[in-house]
Amino acid sequence: MAVYTDINEIELAAFLDGYDIGCLLSYKGIAEGVENSNYLLHTDKGSFILTLYEKRVNRNDLPFFIGLMQHLAQKGIDCPLPVHRKDGATIGELAGRPAAIVTFLEGMWMRRPTVAHCHAVGDALARMHLAGLDFSMRRENALSVSGWRPLWDNAKDRADEVEPGLGAETEADLAFLEASWPASLPGGVIHADLFPDNVFFLGDRLSGLIDFYFASTDLLAYDLAVCLNAWCFEKDFSFNLTKGTALLRGYTSVRPLGEEEAAALPVLARGAALRFMLTRLYDWLNVPDGSFVVKKDPMEYVRRMRFHRQINSAAEYGLALNKEIK
Amino acid sequence: MAVYTDINEIELAAFLDGYDIGCLLSYKGIAEGVENSNYLLHTDKGSFILTLYEKRVNRNDLPFFIGLMQHLAQKGIDCPLPVHRKDGATIGELAGRPAAIVTFLEGMWMRRPTVAHCHAVGDALARMHLAGLDFSMRRENALSVSGWRPLWDNAKDRADEVEPGLGAETEADLAFLEASWPASLPGGVIHADLFPDNVFFLGDRLSGLIDFYFASTDLLAYDLAVCLNAWCFEKDFSFNLTKGTALLRGYTSVRPLGEEEAAALPVLARGAALRFMLTRLYDWLNVPDGSFVVKKDPMEYVRRMRFHRQINSAAEYGLALNKEIK
Repeated sequence: MAVYTDINEIELAAFLDGYDIGCLLSYKGIAEGVENSNYLLHTDKGSFILTLYEKRVNRNDLPFFIGLMQHLAQKGIDCPLPVHRKDGATIGELAGRPAAIVTFLEGMWMRRPTVAHCHAVGDALARMHLAGLDFSMRRENALSVSGWRPLWDNAKDRADEVEPGLGAETEADLAFLEASWPASLPGGVIHADLFPDNVFFLGDRLSGLIDFYFASTDLLAYDLAVCLNAWCFEKDFSFNLTKGTALLRGYTSVRPLGEEEAAALPVLARGAALRFMLTRLYDWLNVPDGSFVVKKDPMEYVRRMRFHRQINSAAEYGLALNKEIK
Repeated sequence: MAVYTDINEIELAAFLDGYDIGCLLSYKGIAEGVENSNYLLHTDKGSFILTLYEKRVNRNDLPFFIGLMQHLAQKGIDCPLPVHRKDGATIGELAGRPAAIVTFLEGMWMRRPTVAHCHAVGDALARMHLAGLDFSMRRENALSVSGWRPLWDNAKDRADEVEPGLGAETEADLAFLEASWPASLPGGVIHADLFPDNVFFLGDRLSGLIDFYFASTDLLAYDLAVCLNAWCFEKDFSFNLTKGTALLRGYTSVRPLGEEEAAALPVLARGAALRFMLTRLYDWLNVPDGSFVVKKDPMEYVRRMRFHRQINSAAEYGLALNKEIK
């Protein structure tokens, strides 16, 4: 659920006067996206997405996000293309919020991704990483390892409300990860949130990546570790090795991992699980019931953390150590 | 907010196999409609709305609603046209719920309707009433005068929680309305919920009526009274006589009121205000916070009830007694 801000026809017409996207035929608030308000527009020139950036998004970050989408689209990555206003800008203001219009991507996100989808998302992630290498802007990843301790400090006293012992368990994991986090792996632009709802398909063909609002400059292999968490676990929290193998094969077919990246994958995957556990835990404990922010169960990521703790090598995720490392 | 039921790509593909509407390109849950889950579909043949009927809708009523839309569309009324399945049916099942696909109507609902919009909605309501005269199915209006007492019995003990004195005030109004409700005005199919969010416009041109899920067989003039409540009050609860005049002129230009209908308009308008007050009050008191049912303030209709109590004649709503009565 994610229309926080309703907009009326008068302010919308005034906003659209700044664009050359044709005559407005309809606008519908869409129930996707967790952070912002999104409308699907039909005009006589096509379909577009209008996004109103709500308070969880820092408006100083918008030029990075918009610039990244422009850069990636230019490089042939299928992602929404920000539409320029007549005055050349890509960000305007609507209903008191920063707002942008991007092209609409056809495609559907997979509630039940298959092995083929996992392969395709690995491939697309690697292509995105390569395409982003010469993107000139930087944005620190506030939700990388250095950001976890402050999040945890705000939640740890009540963690045991979710499951007895979760406080001590998480404390130990966090200390381990802070001590073991790799310092010098290849970096670049990462998506940082490439979950199934951010990847569109038409059949088995990947038609686009969306929602770059967590994108930042960080370790590329960490992005892959996020995807292992997001795509390769089943609803019963078992790791699907066939999907892991496909995801990694898709990725390394485009961008082989370095030896150090491969060796770090278990730590990175464990860190990625902790990162999503922490933000879910924070919301679980702090967002009031009945808010429009959908609260997701942090235990789904505690289960992943426990899995990753037992992993000794990237081979256990499906990486072919003899083939997929450069 | 109104996507109660998420659907996955597998069950959706199976459902769409029953239709001949082209190749699915995207489906987005849309945040409109209060009772059901609605998806906007894009296919290579156009746009459609997929509705999953949630538990507030009685599935035995669906043939009436669907049949009515077919009937009205056939008669030239701009409303969604139910799409036939390959097997001829118009209702299927998806995610354990009855589901139907209708054509998508371009247009926008007016958050801030103008006088011109009020005239257009009056005109369209009258055309709908005429077009419905030979519709052969009947559906009792469960939310007409005989349905108010049971609703009230479930809410009256707690009405004073909303405003002290509301219990006695409503009791008196209800008793008055039960005693004064007109028995023999012209009847037919009414929309019964023709609020601004159910009427689409392209500029000042009315492009369609939607959401027939309260439609029923009742007094035609009562439908007009609902519209007076829905379209002609300002946000400060003042009645806008210019809008009232335009709405009534639009209606009577197509279907002049009978003398008895005109005389009954103040009672009907008072009843319509009570009807919406009662359902809002019921939800206000009974729907838990944080439910996806959006709770609207019953006091907005208490304010209208108080206004209508002081009205002596339809002229005070803007009816030209010498011209608009047949």
